[in-house]
Parts: sequence; C-alpha cells; structure tokens
Amino acid sequence: MEVMQVLHMNKGDDENSYAKNSKVQSKIISLGKRINEEAIMQILCSNIPDIMGIADLGCSSGPNSLSVISEITDVIYAKCRELGRPTPELKVFLNDLPSNDFNFIFGSLPAFYDKLKKEKGSEFGPCFVSATPGSFYGRLFPSRSLHCVHSSSSLHWLSQVPAGLESNARTAMNKGKIYISKSSSLCVLEAYSLQFQKDFSSFLKSRSKEIVPGGCMLLSFMGRRSTDPTTDESCYHWELLAQALMSMVSEGLVEEEKVDSFNAPYYGPCAEETRLEIEKDGSFSVNRLETFEIDWDGGVDDVDTTSGAASRGQRVAKTIRAVVESMLESHFEKDIMDELFRRYGEMVEGYLSKTGTKYTNLVISMVRN
Amino acid sequence: MEVMQVLHMNKGDDENSYAKNSKVQSKIISLGKRINEEAIMQILCSNIPDIMGIADLGCSSGPNSLSVISEITDVIYAKCRELGRPTPELKVFLNDLPSNDFNFIFGSLPAFYDKLKKEKGSEFGPCFVSATPGSFYGRLFPSRSLHCVHSSSSLHWLSQVPAGLESNARTAMNKGKIYISKSSSLCVLEAYSLQFQKDFSSFLKSRSKEIVPGGCMLLSFMGRRSTDPTTDESCYHWELLAQALMSMVSEGLVEEEKVDSFNAPYYGPCAEETRLEIEKDGSFSVNRLETFEIDWDGGVDDVDTTSGAASRGQRVAKTIRAVVESMLESHFEKDIMDELFRRYGEMVEGYLSKTGTKYTNLVISMVRN
Repeated sequence: MEVMQVLHMNKGDDENSYAKNSKVQSKIISLGKRINEEAIMQILCSNIPDIMGIADLGCSSGPNSLSVISEITDVIYAKCRELGRPTPELKVFLNDLPSNDFNFIFGSLPAFYDKLKKEKGSEFGPCFVSATPGSFYGRLFPSRSLHCVHSSSSLHWLSQVPAGLESNARTAMNKGKIYISKSSSLCVLEAYSLQFQKDFSSFLKSRSKEIVPGGCMLLSFMGRRSTDPTTDESCYHWELLAQALMSMVSEGLVEEEKVDSFNAPYYGPCAEETRLEIEKDGSFSVNRLETFEIDWDGGVDDVDTTSGAASRGQRVAKTIRAVVESMLESHFEKDIMDELFRRYGEMVEGYLSKTGTKYTNLVISMVRN
Repeated sequence: MEVMQVLHMNKGDDENSYAKNSKVQSKIISLGKRINEEAIMQILCSNIPDIMGIADLGCSSGPNSLSVISEITDVIYAKCRELGRPTPELKVFLNDLPSNDFNFIFGSLPAFYDKLKKEKGSEFGPCFVSATPGSFYGRLFPSRSLHCVHSSSSLHWLSQVPAGLESNARTAMNKGKIYISKSSSLCVLEAYSLQFQKDFSSFLKSRSKEIVPGGCMLLSFMGRRSTDPTTDESCYHWELLAQALMSMVSEGLVEEEKVDSFNAPYYGPCAEETRLEIEKDGSFSVNRLETFEIDWDGGVDDVDTTSGAASRGQRVAKTIRAVVESMLESHFEKDIMDELFRRYGEMVEGYLSKTGTKYTNLVISMVRN
C-alpha cells in the first residue's frame, strides 16, 4: 500500500464524505485556537513582514480546510488594526496529498474571498490562496518562504506502514490486529515507534528549511498521555475496528490473511518522544507542548440532529469511516465497507457505554530558531 | 452568466474531455516554444535568482497543463548546466478558474516529479508546484514574486460577456449570432472591443505588480491578422456554431430567444489593439509580437487514429465542445449538446472542404520594465 496514493479523506459532500463527518477535527482545531493566536501574535509583535507566508499542512477537504485560514487572517487583521499598521500581503498554501479533493475546496474559494473583503475591507491583504499537493514528509515550499505553519489532525499519519509490517511482508507480525494492541509483540511496537521517529524527523528537517527564523509552527495531532503505546487512549479505536473485521472473518465475509497483512500507517506518540525528536533536530524551540482530551464523537453538544446518525457509536463510525475508508478499500473489498462500519458502530456504542475513554491530542507550538 | 463560475474545460479524461481533445492547444504551445525559450534565456543570462517564480495562467486540465512547466524546467536545466551554475529553487504556480479540474492535474504530479528527478537528478531545483485558482483579470500572486509568466490559449476569454450583450439585457443586440458576425451592428463590435481593452488592461496591471523588473511574460492567444473584427479567421468557428443552433431553432429543438440572448465571452484581438493596451499600461516592453496560423484541427499530422473521430469536422467539433460546453450548458439545455455538436461537426466539415481558413494566433513576448 502506497500511503501517498491511497490515503485521502472521503471526497465530495455526500453522507459518508469527510466534509460531512469532520466535527471531531473541527473541535480539535477550535481547541488549538488560543495557542495558534498566541503564536501568530508573537510574530506580528516582533516585525510585520511585507509578504507573509502561511501554510496549512494536511488541509483535507471540507469546511475545516478554510476555517484555519479564516482564523489566522482574523488574528492578523485584529493585530494590524491595533498597531495601526497596514496588513501584509498573505500567501497562503493549502497542502495535502495529491489524491485529496482540492476541487471541493476551490469551489468555496470565491465565497471565502467575498467574506474576507466584506469583513475586512478591500485594503486587507490581499490574500492569495494556493494549493500545494505532496507529502509533508518531504520539501513542499521554497527555502525561508513561510512565517507560519499550521497542521491539525494530520501528523499521526505515517509516510508508510512501518518497515516489516507491510502487507507484502513474509511473516504477518501482528495477526488479527491492524494497529498496536496489548497483544502486539515488542517488535511491532518498535517498528511503529521507529517509523514515527523517522517521519517526524523528516518533517522537521523539511520545515526547518522552509520557515524563516522567528517563524512559528503549530502542530496538533492524535497522541497519548502514557509512555506505554498500548493503552486504550491511543489504540482502542483501531482495536475495535480489528474486532469488527475479525467478526467478519469468523463468518467468512473477510479473509483472515487480509486482516493479518494489514497495519495502519498511523502512530499516536506521547509528548516525550515528540519532544525528543524536536530536540534532536535542533532547529525549533518549543513554546508549548500540551495534551488535551477529546470525546470520540467530538462532544455531545455538537450533535447534528439532521445527520440521521442517532447513536454515538454510529457517529463515531462515520467519523472514522470518512478518514480510513480510502485506505481500507485499497486492501479489502470495497463492498464490505457498509457492513464493516455497521458492526464497528455497534461495537463503539457498546464500548463507550462502559468506559469514558477519550482521544488524546497533542498540541505543540514552536518557533524556528 | 458568471464566467468565473461556468467557464471550464471539460473535466476528467473521457471521450468529450478537454484532456482528450486539446491537440490544437498543444500545437499552439509547441509553436510558441522557441520564443518562450528565448525569453527565459534572457532572464538567466542577466542574473539567476535563488528562487525563481514561474506561473502558467489558464493552465486548464490535461496533458498540456504540465507540459509548459516541463519545457520551462528543461530550458533552465540546460542553461544552468551550460553556465556551470546550480539551478534556482523553482516555485511554480498553475492558475485557472476555480471550477477547473485541478484534481486531474494533481493526479499526474507524482509522475511529473519522478520524471524531473530521473532526467535532471536530485540536485535540480527543487521544483515546487502549486495551484492558484482565480481570475487572471485580478491579482493572483504577491508583489514582485514572479520571474516568468506564461499563458497560452486563455486570454481570448473575457472576464464577462461584454456590457450590453449579457443574457439579461433588455434588448437582444446580436440576434441569431453568438459572437461578432458580419451582420453584427457597430455597437456589438464596440462592446466586444471595449470589454477586451478593459480586461487586457486589468490583466497587465495585475501582472505588472506581480512580476519582478526584468521578468518575462509570454502570452499566446487567439486573435486575427486583420484590423476588421468580422473576418472569418477570428469569427467563423462561432458563426458555424450559431448556424448549428439556429438550425435546431428552426426544428423547434432550441428556443430562438435562447440563441438571441447568448453571446460568447470571447474576443480575438488584432496585433495593433493588443500593442496599444501594452503601451497604455507602460509597464512592459514588447520584445516580439508575432502572428501565426493554425489549422482548425491542429494539423492533419497530429490525427490520433485511435480516437474514432474520423472526419476533420468531427475532430474540430470535439475540440470546440471540450472548451465551450460548460458555458453552453449553463445557458441552453444540457441534453441538446450531442445533437448540437453533431450538426456543428457536419457544418465544419462542409466549410473546411471549401476554404482554407485557419485560426490566427498572437504570440507576445515582453519584459517587465
């Protein structure tokens, strides 16, 4: 499985699309808002550049794609007004893998520009939005061209399935599981941890070349509080998906070998191992590194009663489906998806009724030295 | 009709797509190649920048979208090798209206990068490709951020149907026609000419802010040799389309009022009126302004015998359909298109068998003062 080719949020805006099922990610963005504001303020206080480069890495496709940019422009507008300074020209880059549905984002760009003009006047910016498709584990932008980099709900995706765990490996190392599990062997844990270190280090190396000294980077992604990578907070949404798959194996609906040979290109790191990579790289200073918890469905207050997904389990299943379906489809049969996520929804419902497990999200704010 | 929202080349890669029917435009690009090379060489001879900004305006969606960029990178690679200098980092921007099928282009980006690396080595560039959706009649890029701007087969599209000729105008001024025709009144001719002047002047004003002094711009678009805007070279492909529509009117398949109220947001200028606008703007010096002729089907040597479009008329009809269908669909009924372009193909076939009319293309190479 080539992550670059198969990983994308569900396209368009139908019932199973990411656009319609991205409230958890929206909640995560809003929880990081305060820290994001703080980081941008810091840049503007020192020196307002004539042209300010801003990038959102892993922008996906849906209402969240432009909301981060809206927020950033709000902060810049407010601060420049406060200082009585003209706003810089803004060059904004939306990044995701080439298979992301960029057309969908572009469809809402004219309305985005209209809103900007209406709210901030024609003197603001101007703001120029571009899309830059590619993997953020490599270079994406010219040297020293960015002042502010943002990435939310994306860096938990690895560049590849960890070495040794790929679907074409000679021996299945993680039978019946699709991510780290309590029963996974130490070498599975190590393979995941190593892949994260390698990927995150490549990410930092690329960004260190692209961000100007003093520029800020705000990263937010799924992780864990515990140093133990097998705790429920970072594994159990995968554990249940493996169980749903195995229940279909037991009924002959899915081949067991297919489950054995699938491992998710995903890793939820803890704060310590993340900080370690940043220190090893040496180009960035960490201003904040915080964790916060988030409900599996983004919080009950957010329930969209029009979505028709009545139970919490179903809502969670839809959220996960919108994110992982493209990957699962490339490995399993396309036509098992409805049944798989029906079962998954039921299992999630049962699980959540017994426990209070939440996702852990890491938020890191740093500055390029 | 909002040109911004409805004008786009036919999407995807099926039989009627622009991707499969853009040989004329490809031929036009290749005819401008020499002049393009010359312009880039001139920049590189004076001073190779560390980061070079390149934009292709109206990139469309198909094999042509990245071919211009390939050509430009070839020239830069060859010249830097010759001079024994490292290549600059390249920031490349592909522009078209937001409704363009950018996803299709992005699908071929990984192969584009692979080819670049294979042919030019990993030391080349790096080259970063982004897409910037929006109208090139307004600002698209930050101030002084571009060294080389290219636009082929795009600037003949106006930003809007000329004032007074819109579909909601009180009186239909150009009955039975959809573009300038020998029978069009003087005020129709003037409305078209004025809209061109306004648009081309906005285009130059925006680019003059975005291009660095000494930077080059190569424009190539449909035009005419004659100062008379009613000659066949720039009108007759529209004249025949109007005739095809009127033949359907006579059979009750299309409402006459629909034809009367449609005028194409298109203009094929002559060299003189183009030069006049450039001189009025004053920011650019013209190095070359040439016209060349091109067959309606791009030249017989290019016939793709696998396409199944046997007759010349049919091939021309497919080329035109891929370009104008989105616009016609927004005004007429979607389900008349097959029949309309069948008739159009027959009319083109008959016409070409009697005359040697060709398109006239203008190519202008200029430098930012």
